[in-house]
Amino acid sequence: MPVICVPTPEDAENLTGLDGVRVVVWDGTGDLPDGIDEVTFFVGPYMVERFSRERLAVMPQLRVIQLLSAGVDPWLPLVPEGVVLCNGRGVHGISTAELAVGGLLSLLRGLPDYRADQLAHRWSPTREGPDLDGRRVLLIGAGEIAQAVAAAVEVFGAETTLVARTARAGVHTMADLPGLLPEHDVVVLALPYTAETDHLVDAAFLAAMPDGAILVNVARGRIVDTDALLAELTRERLSAFLDVVDPEPLPEDHPLWDAPNVLLTPHVGGGTDGWRRRGARLIRAQVERFVAGQPLQNVVGSSY
Amino acid sequence: MPVICVPTPEDAENLTGLDGVRVVVWDGTGDLPDGIDEVTFFVGPYMVERFSRERLAVMPQLRVIQLLSAGVDPWLPLVPEGVVLCNGRGVHGISTAELAVGGLLSLLRGLPDYRADQLAHRWSPTREGPDLDGRRVLLIGAGEIAQAVAAAVEVFGAETTLVARTARAGVHTMADLPGLLPEHDVVVLALPYTAETDHLVDAAFLAAMPDGAILVNVARGRIVDTDALLAELTRERLSAFLDVVDPEPLPEDHPLWDAPNVLLTPHVGGGTDGWRRRGARLIRAQVERFVAGQPLQNVVGSSY
Repeated sequence: MPVICVPTPEDAENLTGLDGVRVVVWDGTGDLPDGIDEVTFFVGPYMVERFSRERLAVMPQLRVIQLLSAGVDPWLPLVPEGVVLCNGRGVHGISTAELAVGGLLSLLRGLPDYRADQLAHRWSPTREGPDLDGRRVLLIGAGEIAQAVAAAVEVFGAETTLVARTARAGVHTMADLPGLLPEHDVVVLALPYTAETDHLVDAAFLAAMPDGAILVNVARGRIVDTDALLAELTRERLSAFLDVVDPEPLPEDHPLWDAPNVLLTPHVGGGTDGWRRRGARLIRAQVERFVAGQPLQNVVGSSY
Repeated sequence: MPVICVPTPEDAENLTGLDGVRVVVWDGTGDLPDGIDEVTFFVGPYMVERFSRERLAVMPQLRVIQLLSAGVDPWLPLVPEGVVLCNGRGVHGISTAELAVGGLLSLLRGLPDYRADQLAHRWSPTREGPDLDGRRVLLIGAGEIAQAVAAAVEVFGAETTLVARTARAGVHTMADLPGLLPEHDVVVLALPYTAETDHLVDAAFLAAMPDGAILVNVARGRIVDTDALLAELTRERLSAFLDVVDPEPLPEDHPLWDAPNVLLTPHVGGGTDGWRRRGARLIRAQVERFVAGQPLQNVVGSSY
């Protein structure tokens, strides 16, 4: 009988009624539960700091690590040989896309300034600010986050262009960026962080964006060269909504906090209550597939 | 040859190249232009204060008043007998829907608090705030604004219900509100202001909304009983995003400014730069229809 290890009692309860599995609860701390050495399917907790190759070695039968995060980079070095790693695609994406659109609309429609007016009891409508109608939005990353952002901004009349690392129908590749950047009013970063995307958004990338353009980053902070962005913000040529920055947490004395035309949130794109519901649905579906011998979804790699 | 009166030289330029019309420019101030007594199609300026029945009487041949606003209530008493009134449906709706979604997402995702954190250089992620996934959104008004808001929130997993003044397929009527309100997490007001909708949102309406629900008003301030809403906000039972309030402008000493869980913008839903593009397209299309003897769009009434 397959043994499934989950991080919390709630996760175990979520698997109630599944035939043919035994469930153990372990979040990486405290005593090792009975049966841990028979675990074949492991659901990783949010806190990767609790794990190491050695810590995972208590489960020598392990075949699957299922995470609930979209990004898997901190786990990659830990995955034992022969173990499949699955990410949380679909769990956080919707709420991350939602925050991207909320932050973009806040910036575009001047909500931080109106909030300051509210706190000062000042009724001061700004006439003729911009809206999304007819604006060109470039989405880098063509996964669920980018697709949801595209669908939402199209409702408001924006024209969208998708760019991904691999070419496919209707999607541009990274090689097209130099030609695309000058033609877009908004750039949304919604792609994984990898060695290739490290500082993808550097001084040259930013210089190719037109005056007044908006950068949205809901991906990973290190995709953007913070100093280069800070230079463009400081000269008030570009605006930015950033849910992720480099470094994180942003030190109290960092100049980005007070840069002009920047709106910051502290990496909360995926951190809503909706992820528990979506995560529970994903885990149960993946365990069912595993037990039935069906192909798993969201496989991001294995060290075979 | 039909004589068309428009409020600005830019509006006249927008009609360049239309055969068979003469265009005069008058915004309701200054000297009467030559030919004004022959005007049959009149494009009203934004500032209704400039007009009265007497002022419009300088155009005795008038057959059509075309406005660029969605709401027409201040003009209704001015429309001469036999004159058709057309509104600006399609001109402001998209940007109003955009603001409704931006304000709703700001409130839901805590952007005003994160903005305060940014100004204080404080990296303080709030875990497990709400998102739209699985929330039930009730849209009152089933026109373009409500439909665009519905399309956008559905992207993020919300379930939507439309309510309108007249029954039609897939749309509830106002009579269903008492049963619908307790079942919805968000109520968006996007309906016209009329004698019937005056104080539609009163103490009983608000009391029927569940704890923690959000009210969004991008319609007209007087649809909501401000005192009743203030009472619910003050006891922190409901939250609200309000682009319109009663009274407007909100006096500096009004308690609504500092009520808990309220985000205010100063009636800027339709006031973006996009309306000029959309308004110009609408005026030109309507004049073309008028000249060709085709039915006009956006007819909201006549005093026949």
